Amino acid sequence: MDIRQKSIDNIRAIIAQTISNANSGHTGSALSATPMLYSLFNDHMVFNPKDPKFFGRDRLVFSAGHTSALYYSLLHLFGYDLTIDDLKSFRKYKSKTPGHPEYDVVPGVETTTGPLGQGIANAVGMAIGETIFASNFNTKDIKLFDNYTYCYSGDGCLMEGVAVEACSVAGTLKLNKLILLYEDNNITIDGTRTIANSEDTAKKFESMGWNVIQVKNGNDSVACSKAIASAKNSNKPTIIIFKTIIGIGTELQGTPSIHAHPLTSSELETYLTNLGITDGFNVDAEVYSEANKVVEKNLQKYNAWNELLKTYAPKYPDNYKKLKTYLSPKTCNFEKILSNLLNANLSSGRDMSGFILNEVSKTFTSLVGGAADVAASTKAVIKDSEFYSSENRLGRNIHFGIREHSMGSISNGIALYLKQPVFDSTFFVFSNYMLPAIRMRSMMNLPVLSIFTHDSINVGQDGPTHQPIETLTSLRAIPNYLMYRPATPAEAVAGYKIFFDTNRPVGLAFSKTNLSSWSLSTLESAERGGYVIYENKAKPKIEIFATGTEVELAIQVADFYSDLGVRVISVPCESLFASQEKTYKNKVLLKNPTLKIAIEASNDNVWYKYIGENGLLINVSDYQYSGSSNDVYKNAGFSKELIISKINKAIKALE
Amino acid sequence: MDIRQKSIDNIRAIIAQTISNANSGHTGSALSATPMLYSLFNDHMVFNPKDPKFFGRDRLVFSAGHTSALYYSLLHLFGYDLTIDDLKSFRKYKSKTPGHPEYDVVPGVETTTGPLGQGIANAVGMAIGETIFASNFNTKDIKLFDNYTYCYSGDGCLMEGVAVEACSVAGTLKLNKLILLYEDNNITIDGTRTIANSEDTAKKFESMGWNVIQVKNGNDSVACSKAIASAKNSNKPTIIIFKTIIGIGTELQGTPSIHAHPLTSSELETYLTNLGITDGFNVDAEVYSEANKVVEKNLQKYNAWNELLKTYAPKYPDNYKKLKTYLSPKTCNFEKILSNLLNANLSSGRDMSGFILNEVSKTFTSLVGGAADVAASTKAVIKDSEFYSSENRLGRNIHFGIREHSMGSISNGIALYLKQPVFDSTFFVFSNYMLPAIRMRSMMNLPVLSIFTHDSINVGQDGPTHQPIETLTSLRAIPNYLMYRPATPAEAVAGYKIFFDTNRPVGLAFSKTNLSSWSLSTLESAERGGYVIYENKAKPKIEIFATGTEVELAIQVADFYSDLGVRVISVPCESLFASQEKTYKNKVLLKNPTLKIAIEASNDNVWYKYIGENGLLINVSDYQYSGSSNDVYKNAGFSKELIISKINKAIKALE
Repeated sequence: MDIRQKSIDNIRAIIAQTISNANSGHTGSALSATPMLYSLFNDHMVFNPKDPKFFGRDRLVFSAGHTSALYYSLLHLFGYDLTIDDLKSFRKYKSKTPGHPEYDVVPGVETTTGPLGQGIANAVGMAIGETIFASNFNTKDIKLFDNYTYCYSGDGCLMEGVAVEACSVAGTLKLNKLILLYEDNNITIDGTRTIANSEDTAKKFESMGWNVIQVKNGNDSVACSKAIASAKNSNKPTIIIFKTIIGIGTELQGTPSIHAHPLTSSELETYLTNLGITDGFNVDAEVYSEANKVVEKNLQKYNAWNELLKTYAPKYPDNYKKLKTYLSPKTCNFEKILSNLLNANLSSGRDMSGFILNEVSKTFTSLVGGAADVAASTKAVIKDSEFYSSENRLGRNIHFGIREHSMGSISNGIALYLKQPVFDSTFFVFSNYMLPAIRMRSMMNLPVLSIFTHDSINVGQDGPTHQPIETLTSLRAIPNYLMYRPATPAEAVAGYKIFFDTNRPVGLAFSKTNLSSWSLSTLESAERGGYVIYENKAKPKIEIFATGTEVELAIQVADFYSDLGVRVISVPCESLFASQEKTYKNKVLLKNPTLKIAIEASNDNVWYKYIGENGLLINVSDYQYSGSSNDVYKNAGFSKELIISKINKAIKALE
Repeated sequence: MDIRQKSIDNIRAIIAQTISNANSGHTGSALSATPMLYSLFNDHMVFNPKDPKFFGRDRLVFSAGHTSALYYSLLHLFGYDLTIDDLKSFRKYKSKTPGHPEYDVVPGVETTTGPLGQGIANAVGMAIGETIFASNFNTKDIKLFDNYTYCYSGDGCLMEGVAVEACSVAGTLKLNKLILLYEDNNITIDGTRTIANSEDTAKKFESMGWNVIQVKNGNDSVACSKAIASAKNSNKPTIIIFKTIIGIGTELQGTPSIHAHPLTSSELETYLTNLGITDGFNVDAEVYSEANKVVEKNLQKYNAWNELLKTYAPKYPDNYKKLKTYLSPKTCNFEKILSNLLNANLSSGRDMSGFILNEVSKTFTSLVGGAADVAASTKAVIKDSEFYSSENRLGRNIHFGIREHSMGSISNGIALYLKQPVFDSTFFVFSNYMLPAIRMRSMMNLPVLSIFTHDSINVGQDGPTHQPIETLTSLRAIPNYLMYRPATPAEAVAGYKIFFDTNRPVGLAFSKTNLSSWSLSTLESAERGGYVIYENKAKPKIEIFATGTEVELAIQVADFYSDLGVRVISVPCESLFASQEKTYKNKVLLKNPTLKIAIEASNDNVWYKYIGENGLLINVSDYQYSGSSNDVYKNAGFSKELIISKINKAIKALE
């Protein structure tokens, strides 16, 4: 038997044994996709298992994340730090081989996958990232950045809207070094693919500007390899459609039953016997040795890349300096930006955001991003740069089109490639189109900033479809996501500062209407997430929490109570405030106030954490009418008079 | 001038004047799409403005909702209850002419649109609805249900993933009476369409199994009309691509600037003068009279349809009876279902859900629904029915494919057509793919039930990508959405009962693992949303709130404290409990308990509303590892022992 087939057989044996051993996992596609992915690793991928993050590597996104056993088997075979013992711990608590590939958990994994469609959009982002580096730093003779981005997917990913959106972007942008390896086994969990999807995939991708290659027998690894070789020469992104038989070689092959079925011990025995293997975990030495040759060959490429980098520095010192600046951690003088902002005399939140973005982008020269066709309205444009396109890879502004979801997931991919901050932007309410992307970036802790505008019902005539009500709640609830809603210029700058200082995923919600110009707000205090912004007199006994445009209202209300002491606490970022040390929080919070109030044009219950079950929460909990900002806002209860009357009632109830 | 052109000119004059008058709205597409939509109303649509909901009407979905001024102008002209005064109140607070078309606010509007892409998916759902009625009730000679579903969209809707997903479903299901009117003006907010989208729309739709018709001059209303006539005879869904010039006739025509630009008074004057019109609100009498002829012609169709219905009843009494049953409000014997469920001896939440679904579907004969390729796992299948397909419109189970978002929006469309309950289903965590659809159904108060399973981190080896953490928070926060998480068989049945009794949008979150079999849970109490499920002794001083699988844990914990009185309150639906009258709530809640605790494997802050700022919240706020259900759940703090140790600490702090 030739060594290719032997290797493929051994990988399949590992897969079957791993999943059976765990009694959990997806046998079906893992077995049928083995030849195509073996060919990729064996014949094409540039990688170094000992330095899995070296910049010159090809990127592989395992979009069909449930097929992880195949992935881990390949990583093991090709020398990554993943042992047979790790495979024996497949899907066990805190193992290096979790149910789905996890970024920063499994060596070699480029992005966390599992929620279908996300990986394809991440891959599009990585391919954009490659063009950005290539166009900024490659020279005629030194192609420092010149990798391919491969993405493996099944039917599931391709049905998801986020993936189709992203593929349309890839075609428009002519990302010719993106190669999508589509395993077409015609089976999904609930039946044959055609019960839910009868489309002509090849034609669909052609319509989106892709190169299409068909491999009639995806079990033929030589044919698989030839197809990949051909794809590498395309001037468009390529999809290779590999026709396969799901769970090939098992008794359940070609049926939906094999999809997530761990082989029983007798099924496993039969399967292995047919392969001439007794124990899947006992890999043939020749197979290891052959894989090692590939690793060695890649090591030469790795060394060559490092050599290239060495010649680059002296030959192109300016470029090299630019690259170092590009990659090095940096910070801005945010105090200066705040002072410039105050001098600029802007009033609306979104205008302030646009101003700050343009200030920071001078320092953060690597910053790229864009909007879902609302840049004109969210002001999320780097004005002194052009728009990124197939003809201009240097443009720092990206037209994502009216595709919020893929915008989010593509941005994640760009950040994964660049390891540099990226921004995306849309109206706050439409963040719900991109929540799965925001969740993934939060899980991976990626430096992606969302610039949201139109941050409350105070949005204008567009009506309830455009009024965020539950939006703050949704985004604040995503673990490891910082949701920041500025009330003042200082807070607006602080929101940006926190993002650039921490490189964490952050969402900024800016108003369409005017922010408060309250001068007691400082950058330092705003960075705490919550602070005392106003007191109408000493020893206050009433405490008002507020965010965004409601802070100004709270201050007005406080001023009304000239006889009662009222403290206003601005909380642009509740989770950040909650994470402050106790001594700080104790300084901000009153001791035993007589009345605790929270004012926010949102329906978040987080305020009960501060005001307790007896506090007064002034919020909005239902869809509002279409009308002018003013009419909508006031009718929802956000006027000085209405708030005062509610507070008076609460004060009376205390007496 | 011929009357067609005169009518079109007058409609355009109304549009321009309406938007200028409001100084807010989208002039661009409203003007360019006038001929195509005029042709639809004038030559094809079956409608009755005096009885806008008559069942035999054609459906029109205005997916590009921002073009509402065009919609309202047409509704006005063709006799709907929308006056020139209403148009003068365009986008004003509480007017009948809101910024975007709103269901149940504007006469004739079939669904609320605005968030792009949703309308197309709604239209697909309506077209499915039509085939369901037609196949169930039409006879050889009486085609009672035989309407077309038209959907108007621009570029924006077609870029959105939800729309592409839905169009793929429509092609697979051969919904030949669905006609998509695509206004291709090549302009989006941020520039020409090709900056973000270079795809070949015609080819893309062909690949998805659609019939494609091109109208080279979308300003030629006769050509528009011919194209629609041709589409009506297709055996596939049809997209008609109308090439237009955005904002045609204005000084800014053909540019992005006209998109959302209200004409200034001088621009308006020039525009109207060119049309030979002085005041857009002063419509030519001949134009009214011509439109009225169309209304009259339609009245004949309306009368004919009612006659048909009259002949149907005596000729097909069984069918008629079935139809009446189908449409009439009904209820189940849910007590009986609960007793059957208890006898069935099921333990996991999802199995219980599957059982109840099958029980209720016997009574609710109109109930249809499906899952996003996880029916096998969520058990959301009506077992004694088949799957709906292009060959079998009678199947009550729908394969939505791996397209959660469009599943949600298509389900909304089916419910809009049937006016009957519909269900969709996926894993709880992936509800985030379909949030925009859930928001829309909540806004429209549609009878759509989401059957979610795998309701917490207690989900098995799939890891953090599959662990709902913020999911309960997100869904509870959507206004007018009832999120219900059952802990017991009685609660499982109550969740279904609430949906079928109220016809409100409801989400049920079922566990993959075992529910409590606690017998103190009754249907009646479970319907309250919150109730006392257990007390370990009289006069308790400690109060524990819990939901779902955490209720059983809470009961175990209560039993541990044999010396202290502990009350356990199960709260399957917080919003429902919150809406109960005070006397009931006072009976459930302890008066001045010494310690208030909430236990939930979620990160919702809603519990602070009950336990206050000094209460003990035992929850989960970060992504967990991949591992067995048990390992993940316990390591996140959900074991009797860990909870007891936390409570002990809290008790000590009180002393």
